[in-house]
Amino acid sequence: MTRWEPGAAERLQEAALELFATRGFEQTTATEIAQSVGLTERTFFRHFSDKREVLFHGQHLLTQAFLAGVENAPPDASPMEIVASALRSATTSFFPDERRHRSRSRQSVIDQNPALQERERHKLASLAAAVAGALRARGVDDLAATLAAESGVTVFRIAFAQWLREDEPRSLADLTAEVLRELLALTRDRA
Amino acid sequence: MTRWEPGAAERLQEAALELFATRGFEQTTATEIAQSVGLTERTFFRHFSDKREVLFHGQHLLTQAFLAGVENAPPDASPMEIVASALRSATTSFFPDERRHRSRSRQSVIDQNPALQERERHKLASLAAAVAGALRARGVDDLAATLAAESGVTVFRIAFAQWLREDEPRSLADLTAEVLRELLALTRDRA
Repeated sequence: MTRWEPGAAERLQEAALELFATRGFEQTTATEIAQSVGLTERTFFRHFSDKREVLFHGQHLLTQAFLAGVENAPPDASPMEIVASALRSATTSFFPDERRHRSRSRQSVIDQNPALQERERHKLASLAAAVAGALRARGVDDLAATLAAESGVTVFRIAFAQWLREDEPRSLADLTAEVLRELLALTRDRA
Repeated sequence: MTRWEPGAAERLQEAALELFATRGFEQTTATEIAQSVGLTERTFFRHFSDKREVLFHGQHLLTQAFLAGVENAPPDASPMEIVASALRSATTSFFPDERRHRSRSRQSVIDQNPALQERERHKLASLAAAVAGALRARGVDDLAATLAAESGVTVFRIAFAQWLREDEPRSLADLTAEVLRELLALTRDRA
């Protein structure tokens, strides 16, 4: 018999981050994660394909948040204006300041494991490909779409790393806007 | 007794690409690669830590070619001018047109194997980090150095993919210069 477990995915994620941080990612099993919040292994695997995916569960929603920003940009927006809109949409909806502490815990697990770092790079490469696809669907030519999307994801990645620093008070949305301005200044300079 | 094998590394690389292409990467062993050119497994492992590294052997030299370009840029060059110099240096010295066929064979092996794709992403991330470090050593501030280096590697990656297309006649140096111009045009547009 399958009972519905309200908020099971969130409880499992919370517990997993805690165990990964204290025992290490390699040393923690899916069963232990489930048991630590009074759930079964079976419930765990209803929500996640493996323990690694607990850390990458939000990827689909993050991509959706970027794509919503592409969609909401005005019809006459330039490629980089569309990317700016995607960055605003994703950072505001997906990473409010309440989430910073949890994002820090997640990042410190990833920083200690090369395979997880590779998974994270793969996630960001897929995100860039999805944004480039959405730009092309808006009529942006292939090369411009790829460059704008890749640049947007680079800006996001750099701003995100800064957001996670212990002494950083600015919001991710503000940091992203600042890094984007710096990129534009840099490329407007002699080159 | 260890005999010196002239050009052993190159012969092993050549043989490996051939076997990876015909039998598949997973199905080919280091011993088979060595034997196919009349060398021993021991000779193979003197040159490469494993069969995967045959595909990434040139990474160190590629990084050096980028760094030489950073070094050769005039003292008053802007960050993106320095990156343009790094791209010119790497593409001209490291990827003459004679190398295109071999680069295509290598890429088609990588395209068929997700673990090799991750290794390639890791290589490019390390390259960007090395270029950013060299920019900082020239006095470029941290954020500008990271953004300029990441943008340069993005330009390289996109131009490289185009260079490998079957019907592409332009040199990698020309393609890289074109993609860089497109990036600058894109970010000079409204954003």
